[in-house]
Amino acid sequence: MALLQVALDQLDFKAALDCAALVAESADIIEVGTPLLKSVGVRAVSELKARHPRKLILADTKTMDAGALEASLVFGAGADIFTLCSAASRLTLIAGIREAHARGKRALVDLIGVEDILDASLRLEDLEPDFVCFHLGIDQQEAEGRFPVEGMGMLKARLGFPVSVAGGITPADIPELMSIGPAIIVVGAFVTASPDPARAAAEVRQAIDAAKEAQER
Amino acid sequence: MALLQVALDQLDFKAALDCAALVAESADIIEVGTPLLKSVGVRAVSELKARHPRKLILADTKTMDAGALEASLVFGAGADIFTLCSAASRLTLIAGIREAHARGKRALVDLIGVEDILDASLRLEDLEPDFVCFHLGIDQQEAEGRFPVEGMGMLKARLGFPVSVAGGITPADIPELMSIGPAIIVVGAFVTASPDPARAAAEVRQAIDAAKEAQER
Repeated sequence: MALLQVALDQLDFKAALDCAALVAESADIIEVGTPLLKSVGVRAVSELKARHPRKLILADTKTMDAGALEASLVFGAGADIFTLCSAASRLTLIAGIREAHARGKRALVDLIGVEDILDASLRLEDLEPDFVCFHLGIDQQEAEGRFPVEGMGMLKARLGFPVSVAGGITPADIPELMSIGPAIIVVGAFVTASPDPARAAAEVRQAIDAAKEAQER
Repeated sequence: MALLQVALDQLDFKAALDCAALVAESADIIEVGTPLLKSVGVRAVSELKARHPRKLILADTKTMDAGALEASLVFGAGADIFTLCSAASRLTLIAGIREAHARGKRALVDLIGVEDILDASLRLEDLEPDFVCFHLGIDQQEAEGRFPVEGMGMLKARLGFPVSVAGGITPADIPELMSIGPAIIVVGAFVTASPDPARAAAEVRQAIDAAKEAQER
């Protein structure tokens, strides 16, 4: 079971809302991207939850400090999942994950920026994040482009965390990514920068479903 | 010359604006704190710049990805300085610092969350950030409390970067902190949680000025 998360990576609120309406049919999780959150503020979360009450709303806070405060902010606005950077201090991670769980919500820890992913992942083992995200950042995609799928598969097997994968993913990447058994697959620009976001999201959805069927056969 | 930066660490916009009005006389830099930015969005930056055009406005984006995009967002709204986390990928740091400088603005790299501060600082040497911030995060302050002033002084001497110091600072800390020659001293809760923020900010200002005078004697 892989959930499809569409990351609203726009800065403009109306463009993001319009895009969300187009992709909601295919998406399980609608993400308020970090730049959108900083552009619009937490009303991006509350407005998307109001418009899409049956979807999970992920607030990509990428929290680096004040874990409980930032968790409260976005969960108070209706988010279902919030994110912390694994580069944050251990105390921030503990505070944020604890606040999420106290509210019956979920915390995702994002490995973005981390060089030694194995070391960083192992440090998370006793913190009980709900998801760990292998994330090739926007700036890294432009220069490096490629996902280390093989390494991610080994890590996933070793860690046992539910895994999210993010970073420039297109339908062509889905079969290989599905081989590591991710809980969440995140798409951004492939959908949001498409002339037809609804169709692009449906295409990713179909690629996920097809890969699932192939695995079950 | 140490500039006084007051960090608006509220979530509520009106409370933050009211506080800014009270502290503006003493502050050189007004900081839109990360939780405030995520709560209110970038209009926090534009509104503070409109109300305090002669103050420097620092947008504490704590950018971890999309360095140029987040720089554009806050500089477009009138910020003078924006921040990147040193934990971000090198490509994000390069993109953000380049965007700041292309606009004639300044980039601060925050060492928050970093364990090996020397190693992290040395990696910044060729990136030409305008400031590097030694930052004891809110969550760390609660558990650890203390600033590693001696280590910071050695680092500052070795690196030659203009340094900002942040994290639970009170007037009692100022004489020791001034000994390392910081370019910026950041105060948050001491001012913002005070029953009299104007007086608290003036007290920090006086402590900085007194320490300067003592050094010059």
